[in-house]
Amino acid sequence: MKPFCSVFIATSLDGFISRTDGNIDWLEQANLLKPDRDDCGYANFFATIDALVMGRNTFEQALKFPSWPYGSTPVYVLSSSLTVLPISAPESVELHSGSPESIVSLSEQRGHRRLYVDGGKTIQGFLKCGYITEITITVIPILLGTGTSLFGALPRDVRLKHISTTTYPFGFVQSTYKPTSDI
Amino acid sequence: MKPFCSVFIATSLDGFISRTDGNIDWLEQANLLKPDRDDCGYANFFATIDALVMGRNTFEQALKFPSWPYGSTPVYVLSSSLTVLPISAPESVELHSGSPESIVSLSEQRGHRRLYVDGGKTIQGFLKCGYITEITITVIPILLGTGTSLFGALPRDVRLKHISTTTYPFGFVQSTYKPTSDI
Repeated sequence: MKPFCSVFIATSLDGFISRTDGNIDWLEQANLLKPDRDDCGYANFFATIDALVMGRNTFEQALKFPSWPYGSTPVYVLSSSLTVLPISAPESVELHSGSPESIVSLSEQRGHRRLYVDGGKTIQGFLKCGYITEITITVIPILLGTGTSLFGALPRDVRLKHISTTTYPFGFVQSTYKPTSDI
Repeated sequence: MKPFCSVFIATSLDGFISRTDGNIDWLEQANLLKPDRDDCGYANFFATIDALVMGRNTFEQALKFPSWPYGSTPVYVLSSSLTVLPISAPESVELHSGSPESIVSLSEQRGHRRLYVDGGKTIQGFLKCGYITEITITVIPILLGTGTSLFGALPRDVRLKHISTTTYPFGFVQSTYKPTSDI
């Protein structure tokens, strides 16, 4: 059975996941300004997943955190440029140069039924292949003007079903959608 | 007193107001699929405004409608390329080649206190000048991949205050924000 592939990500109101140089200062600031450090469902979401799939950029950002943010949860790092993992990478991390298809089939073999797909390029790659089952976007009330877009070009329109929207008193708006059309 | 400048617009989930060629078939289809032809607050919003400001593209689209969609409400068309209005333009339409500043000051003189600012370039121009008071975005549950973006480059971040979000049973999610930072 194909794994359930979820996206759980924050964007600016103009749809960026980071500034052009990868900086997410605007998101960190917005998180710090929340009066009660509400995680907007992240821990609950994370508890449901069996493995993560991310690109090199997201992986390298995670390595810079004070401590590895994903515990012992298996992480597939997709990269066409990395040939070995840095020595600081935890044992739970595996490097792959393959396509979304190959990761999906590896996950099936290993019984990873719920994947957390993260990072712009990786999400776009999985979307193009029709693998994304659910997308949760938390919109931060800021316009950046430029940056790295969550979404990119698609071979055709993707229709979605709106599942739910939660608004937070600090101005974040979180919506969950499920793609409904094959692409 | 400077006019209150509102945006009331629909976008795809990936932030486009039209396809690259200006086509809004995806929006028209989504509107037709709504079981009860709910206008998502448009008529109520329109009843509050004194005049419209739009660019040439939006104006030319409106001219193609079976009937002029804005009644006798004054319309400022901003264009640097048009020199005369087409003969089919209603009397309520005025052509201007000026900047957002000049339209805002003309509106002040004429007592137009609430402007409806429409069309990507016009909205972006007003945002850059710090004139937008309120933005209502209705997100249609579709990804287009490419198209004309609602937002564009900005001289600096624009922080916003989230005012309200309404979700519709047919999957539209409508959020209203007010810019809070000067840009």
